[in-house]
Amino acid sequence: MSTPTIDLNADLGEGFGRWRLTDDDELLSVVTSANVACGFHAGDPATMRRVCERAAERGVRIGAQVSYRDLAGFGRRAMDVPAAELAAEVAYQIGALEVFARAAGTRVAYVKPHGALYNRVVHDEDQAGAVIEGVLLADEAMPLLGLPGSRLLEAAQEAGLPVVTEAFADRAYTDEGTLVPRGEEGAVITDADAVVERSLGMAGAGAVTSLSGREIAVRARSLCLHGDTPGAADLARRVRSRLESAGVRVAAFA
Amino acid sequence: MSTPTIDLNADLGEGFGRWRLTDDDELLSVVTSANVACGFHAGDPATMRRVCERAAERGVRIGAQVSYRDLAGFGRRAMDVPAAELAAEVAYQIGALEVFARAAGTRVAYVKPHGALYNRVVHDEDQAGAVIEGVLLADEAMPLLGLPGSRLLEAAQEAGLPVVTEAFADRAYTDEGTLVPRGEEGAVITDADAVVERSLGMAGAGAVTSLSGREIAVRARSLCLHGDTPGAADLARRVRSRLESAGVRVAAFA
Amino acid sequence: MSTPTIDLNADLGEGFGRWRLTDDDELLSVVTSANVACGFHAGDPATMRRVCERAAERGVRIGAQVSYRDLAGFGRRAMDVPAAELAAEVAYQIGALEVFARAAGTRVAYVKPHGALYNRVVHDEDQAGAVIEGVLLADEAMPLLGLPGSRLLEAAQEAGLPVVTEAFADRAYTDEGTLVPRGEEGAVITDADAVVERSLGMAGAGAVTSLSGREIAVRARSLCLHGDTPGAADLARRVRSRLESAGVRVAAFA
Amino acid sequence: MSTPTIDLNADLGEGFGRWRLTDDDELLSVVTSANVACGFHAGDPATMRRVCERAAERGVRIGAQVSYRDLAGFGRRAMDVPAAELAAEVAYQIGALEVFARAAGTRVAYVKPHGALYNRVVHDEDQAGAVIEGVLLADEAMPLLGLPGSRLLEAAQEAGLPVVTEAFADRAYTDEGTLVPRGEEGAVITDADAVVERSLGMAGAGAVTSLSGREIAVRARSLCLHGDTPGAADLARRVRSRLESAGVRVAAFA
Repeated sequence: MSTPTIDLNADLGEGFGRWRLTDDDELLSVVTSANVACGFHAGDPATMRRVCERAAERGVRIGAQVSYRDLAGFGRRAMDVPAAELAAEVAYQIGALEVFARAAGTRVAYVKPHGALYNRVVHDEDQAGAVIEGVLLADEAMPLLGLPGSRLLEAAQEAGLPVVTEAFADRAYTDEGTLVPRGEEGAVITDADAVVERSLGMAGAGAVTSLSGREIAVRARSLCLHGDTPGAADLARRVRSRLESAGVRVAAFA
Repeated sequence: MSTPTIDLNADLGEGFGRWRLTDDDELLSVVTSANVACGFHAGDPATMRRVCERAAERGVRIGAQVSYRDLAGFGRRAMDVPAAELAAEVAYQIGALEVFARAAGTRVAYVKPHGALYNRVVHDEDQAGAVIEGVLLADEAMPLLGLPGSRLLEAAQEAGLPVVTEAFADRAYTDEGTLVPRGEEGAVITDADAVVERSLGMAGAGAVTSLSGREIAVRARSLCLHGDTPGAADLARRVRSRLESAGVRVAAFA
Repeated sequence: MSTPTIDLNADLGEGFGRWRLTDDDELLSVVTSANVACGFHAGDPATMRRVCERAAERGVRIGAQVSYRDLAGFGRRAMDVPAAELAAEVAYQIGALEVFARAAGTRVAYVKPHGALYNRVVHDEDQAGAVIEGVLLADEAMPLLGLPGSRLLEAAQEAGLPVVTEAFADRAYTDEGTLVPRGEEGAVITDADAVVERSLGMAGAGAVTSLSGREIAVRARSLCLHGDTPGAADLARRVRSRLESAGVRVAAFA
Repeated sequence: MSTPTIDLNADLGEGFGRWRLTDDDELLSVVTSANVACGFHAGDPATMRRVCERAAERGVRIGAQVSYRDLAGFGRRAMDVPAAELAAEVAYQIGALEVFARAAGTRVAYVKPHGALYNRVVHDEDQAGAVIEGVLLADEAMPLLGLPGSRLLEAAQEAGLPVVTEAFADRAYTDEGTLVPRGEEGAVITDADAVVERSLGMAGAGAVTSLSGREIAVRARSLCLHGDTPGAADLARRVRSRLESAGVRVAAFA
């Protein structure tokens, strides 16, 4: 029987100029994949450079966390961006990050949409297609990291791009295996112990208990850890430690 | 005796979103090198993509026209940007443009600072060094296009980067071969015939008449044509036609 | 019998920094109400100041053309802005314009949403309410200019704010008196003569021929003229001239 | 003998969107004047509204902290902004803040430039004049808060505007009474006890010990407290407490 293996990803470099959000150094000592903000919702060039250098030093994989152009809203406000504009904006962000990844001796290894764009491309065919078009402009073999069953990952597969699925240990799931929408009762799991145990269930058995109490399967090659809440880095460290002590191999996807 | 050869460069893609400034298609039929705005003073991603595609189709070389981050001021306001920030900003812009150049089947072939940054790095050691640092992050063999004698080109040479000098047919020169500062009487030459003849003198004999009436030498591998004034594309066409009919070869630098 | 009276409004000051879009001076000699861009989709402070000064000199009323924060998209991309943010953004824009209106010896006389926000608040209760909340923060007696039957004007009336209805002489209407959506066949009327005659019908008889050929009533105290197309200022002048020669009084709303 | 009176001012609302910098609520319980960021270096509209509401509730005076347009650099990078642009930008920011001050039942009570603009107008005649021009556009009786002996305050006085001088308890002074430039040895005083005692000396006796050890006079109607460092609110509270227990009246300027 093969050793279960899981990637741990988190958003990094989400400051802008004078402002900082995440404890990048702490998180880089825990995760295997860093979703680096590319300047559209967060992430100034000097921060992008520094995060890429430190990620490369620690062997953490660098991903482009692409977003709507919306610093004021942190990329959390859905926007009706025409497909041609969105595709070019996605490519622009990947290219900007690629400079710093290369200068640090590595490459942008995957793309993950951020915030409102992440949610939109779960179902929006037009915008999912635009993101894929933008990724293809940058690299015709670039993996996409996203939600299983999302339109984005379907479109990526249709275009011949590798896809990587992710799960969220701090989010409740429906019986159908989809995320319970934020805002609904119980949607976010705040108990740290529960998050740790759910991580292990997802990474080990590939299963989690749904909000209604049923055991459901969760397909995921990566777990998304949140880094922008108090104690986030500590919780991430506990998750990793628990996984490793239970025999789960923590490693970036190929 | 070898045929005199000159490159013609102009700023392109200097719109932003709804706004347009230059007649990119017209200029692309005249110049051999396109200084493409990269989003900091002008240049949205969709425009960058389109300009790169059309430049590649016509065999026009693509350069990154890097700038201070200043859309409101069109990059024309000098800024005291710390060197580390400026270096990262320069690299970011080059990387963003590189995506579109590569997608169009070519590469970013050179870097030319824009506006206030262009003027600042003529003499500012700190910022000239920062620009070079940013260029090196992106590509350790990238040519710099700039003013002969500028601190920027000196710093580029010290770093082992190729340099390409340019001259301005529509600007008056001092006896020492430097540009008469804008704002001084006679600094800008508005007579189209004079601009055409000066272009030929510069590209052919490597000489021009200074403001005081002396014949002076002008070292330039490229002539900068302005594209944002009424009639600019027509004047550019006349310059090119005059050069070619006089036996000057119009071609991008190697 | 009273003389029919109509207001003519147009968007002005829609440049940004180096970029210009509308011929503000020409339009200010035709319209009676100027919808001045406030910096979020267009409109830098120096332009806002100049437009306010010239509008005041000519007795043209100044309105705040408020928008989503979206320079890259010219405010034409719908955004899911939370109500509290949108309300504050609307108030911010009105306040910024008010400085220049007061300095020119007048006041902001009305508010008109721009672009995607204009379209959104026709039906979106949440955002319409946010716009009204923002207007009330700025001035509890500020008129709203908008589409008859829109949620925005309903919400304004519920809040006790004056409302002013507008019609579009260059847009086709359905039999129900709503605008034929852009993109549908015949939605935009490009024949200048037809636009002039429809203006007169709307301002005089309060009627227009629908796309299907029926005579329908159009309630409008103001006609919106477009200023950002070639020949726009000329067409606006023709409309005004035709209205006046037919005995329609062209005057700002009270 | 009259009771010595001092105003305490601090920068507030210096977040942007998702990012926060200062503990606004804590600081509002200590200071008597709040320098509110107006959106150009920090300060989104929703934050501006909230800070104005809370300041008004606590009777804290609201000032417009105007800045260069530079979110990426937090307004700390000097910019060569032409005077006409700068004047309009200053007025724009004051007007935007005024909406929220009025909605909270009060008014913008003074203007204080931020960061690089603050430093520039100490000596730059052109930009100091532009700031004053912008203030006059907004309000012809608006007080300016700034450095004694600065060109800004001179220009304000020449224009008939009230001026309020401030001092910095955590900055070293030269024998001539000017600030020791940041970056020089000993320029910033980090010992909290020393800051508290210097505050009392400045507010009470109007004197402070210079870097070389001489007792010098400091003219100041206001003390500037910094709010963006760890422990800043606690230190501010200690300063206020020490002043009051020593019989200094802490009150906003008239």
